[in-house]
Amino acid sequence: MKPILDLNAFDAKEASNLGGELERSVQSRKRLFGAASVLFYAKPLEFVRGRDCWLYTADGVAYLDAYNNVPSVGHSHPKVVDAATQQLRQLNVHSRYVHAGVIEYAEQLLSHFPSDLSNITFTCTGSESNDLALRMASAFTGGHGVIVTEAAYHGNTALATEVSPSSFKQGAVPPYVRVIPAPDARLAEPAGLGQYFAAQVSAAIEDLAARGYRLSALIADSIFSSDGVFAEPAGFLRDAVQTVRSAGGLFIADEVQPGFGRTGEHMWGYGRHGVRPDVVTLGKPMGNGYPMGAVITRPEILEAFCARTGYFNTFAATPVAAAVGQAVLEVIRQENLLPNAARVGAYLKHKLLGLATRHPRITAVRGVGLYVGVELAPGNDGVAGSRLAKNLVNGLRERRVLIGAAGRFGNVLKVRPPLTFSSAHVDVLIAALDETLQRTP
Amino acid sequence: MKPILDLNAFDAKEASNLGGELERSVQSRKRLFGAASVLFYAKPLEFVRGRDCWLYTADGVAYLDAYNNVPSVGHSHPKVVDAATQQLRQLNVHSRYVHAGVIEYAEQLLSHFPSDLSNITFTCTGSESNDLALRMASAFTGGHGVIVTEAAYHGNTALATEVSPSSFKQGAVPPYVRVIPAPDARLAEPAGLGQYFAAQVSAAIEDLAARGYRLSALIADSIFSSDGVFAEPAGFLRDAVQTVRSAGGLFIADEVQPGFGRTGEHMWGYGRHGVRPDVVTLGKPMGNGYPMGAVITRPEILEAFCARTGYFNTFAATPVAAAVGQAVLEVIRQENLLPNAARVGAYLKHKLLGLATRHPRITAVRGVGLYVGVELAPGNDGVAGSRLAKNLVNGLRERRVLIGAAGRFGNVLKVRPPLTFSSAHVDVLIAALDETLQRTP
Repeated sequence: MKPILDLNAFDAKEASNLGGELERSVQSRKRLFGAASVLFYAKPLEFVRGRDCWLYTADGVAYLDAYNNVPSVGHSHPKVVDAATQQLRQLNVHSRYVHAGVIEYAEQLLSHFPSDLSNITFTCTGSESNDLALRMASAFTGGHGVIVTEAAYHGNTALATEVSPSSFKQGAVPPYVRVIPAPDARLAEPAGLGQYFAAQVSAAIEDLAARGYRLSALIADSIFSSDGVFAEPAGFLRDAVQTVRSAGGLFIADEVQPGFGRTGEHMWGYGRHGVRPDVVTLGKPMGNGYPMGAVITRPEILEAFCARTGYFNTFAATPVAAAVGQAVLEVIRQENLLPNAARVGAYLKHKLLGLATRHPRITAVRGVGLYVGVELAPGNDGVAGSRLAKNLVNGLRERRVLIGAAGRFGNVLKVRPPLTFSSAHVDVLIAALDETLQRTP
Repeated sequence: MKPILDLNAFDAKEASNLGGELERSVQSRKRLFGAASVLFYAKPLEFVRGRDCWLYTADGVAYLDAYNNVPSVGHSHPKVVDAATQQLRQLNVHSRYVHAGVIEYAEQLLSHFPSDLSNITFTCTGSESNDLALRMASAFTGGHGVIVTEAAYHGNTALATEVSPSSFKQGAVPPYVRVIPAPDARLAEPAGLGQYFAAQVSAAIEDLAARGYRLSALIADSIFSSDGVFAEPAGFLRDAVQTVRSAGGLFIADEVQPGFGRTGEHMWGYGRHGVRPDVVTLGKPMGNGYPMGAVITRPEILEAFCARTGYFNTFAATPVAAAVGQAVLEVIRQENLLPNAARVGAYLKHKLLGLATRHPRITAVRGVGLYVGVELAPGNDGVAGSRLAKNLVNGLRERRVLIGAAGRFGNVLKVRPPLTFSSAHVDVLIAALDETLQRTP
């Protein structure tokens, strides 16, 4: 498997062909960031300004952002920027002093969850959230085994990496982690995806037991983003979660990708499946770019963890994080971003399905709301699909539209714009993709 | 050992004695944050504003901050706030696009390190930095054993917690982690602390080998903050680092506490000991409260790590983080905060030693620059010392001065103000501590 971090990466060996200022910048990055310097695109991009769904170069050239899900309410949203600015001027300090804004934000955020998920622990990143959630599950269940999908990505800490098959360039996940296939409905005939996926989970539980690991958790992002975006049929997660519970394990809903309204139906992706998670993790879009995350769970699960070690996060649950997070929640509500994601997402899928009738290299259009995957070849012929995906992503970049790639074979175009995306933006994207498909061999 | 996170913690059972708005806030926090809600002080504090070395309540009452090392250039420093605000208005996006500000900041920051430490990887927190550094060391050395001091704290991820003996309420560090005593010169007679500490490291290496673990790294913060602040004599780390290298291990300098000029002599705490680390980790004061950290190392160490898995951090190395970090570096230089830390720190130690002559319960004054520990009883009589420390911290809070406690037994007062602390601030602190010592049984 190609590590997901390298999909659509700039090849550093090509730096000397770029020329000019860009070449100097790319060489500087290579010198400063070394082996960890990863840039997007065959010809990397430099932006100086962002606003709503647009990113601008120093020359003022605008690129349509159909990729970035962190600036989820739009790049540099004035309400979010103002909230950050005002609070930075007042106070930004850790959470061992009382602060009304922090309490209020925690209340508001928790009001979007079922009442039994009543405790919140703030972190700074989705990686920290998943790292903490996995330890909570282990402390509460006494188990250690973790089930993940085959191309999952859950973060960059040591522990989060161990449950992220897509991160490995060498080796693979450790023995306590059992990988299952992505929930691809085409694999599931005739039983249906719910039963099929639950059977995979069941087999994983048995396999873990045979290796000496009792189940701790199934961790999944309910849009299965890095697996290649799998959302249909709604409800397919239910049987799997039931299977996990029966074995004494917990379901950790990683909402870093689908959370904060992206699916257009619910605030959280798991809502689509009618399941109730034991632990929910938040990250990316939570602060529209301000580094913040959270873990939400039942009090007894948090207590089990806290009986072993404490948890304190210096930069989390600060007055600034709370002000920013609050502003993001308000913008989502005031600008009706859930209905917008539903409406524009449906239009986007409709237009992509239209393209698919004319471009047979599109083998599937999947997703919900403003998280859409465009498969370019079935999973079992991923190599050609991966090459095509890369060419299309770069071709769109030449046409000033930003998207990405995903999937075990990198053969799925990932369309995941800010939630303020409009039908007009969709038309720009579709026209550019149409042309790129025509011109790309 | 009492977990360091609980030193000076508010006892939630006391909440119903607080009364009024504060009681409601404390109860709300307990309900929302559950077992992880930790507040400072027997009577918790609520601040609404911070400026330079002062924190203010809603009533406008000012508290002298001699504790918080994150707002290292002073609370809400206008230059740092302005840098954040301006960049938030322009663009805040991840590092897979080129951004000149990010490159410039990386250049500037690396100019403060020896030339062989030429690669920087940005993170969001000191915890993420140490988590990554430990994996780099393991990938490069092929070893897994880690040596830490007995009350060390290196962060809150799963991996960082495993090397943080001070975090455990139950159990202890895993077998691949070997604990050594804090570098207390009083234990070291007659050989001298350098030889003594190196001998401890040497014994740990042998012990790890006997358990089947080849050495990966010694990780230490050179001010040994949570161990109770040990800085003397300058250079005592040299032999230990040499011992680590001879065994094929790396020295990871955790600069989250002493870094960015706090010791007043060098930009980094390790400078005091004339050693050259293999890996340096940064955190807390780096963005004056904006969540950011970094790992700095040699290219071949980063390469060894990146050959296994990639590393990408969504919220790190953003234009906003770079603008904030740059502003912090500029303020440190423009306001001469290193010489200030040296001068005011020396005055602070002088005044504390003066107090010690009149208050025999002070058994040692340790530290350098604006990182000072006041020991209240020798380590072997820590229980009484811990109780006294707690009473003094709370007594100072009543007198509107904020400090903390540290050390294996919690018997060391921790004085660690913003680097803009002045001699006048020292006088306020000393007068309050003098009175508190007189009035506290």
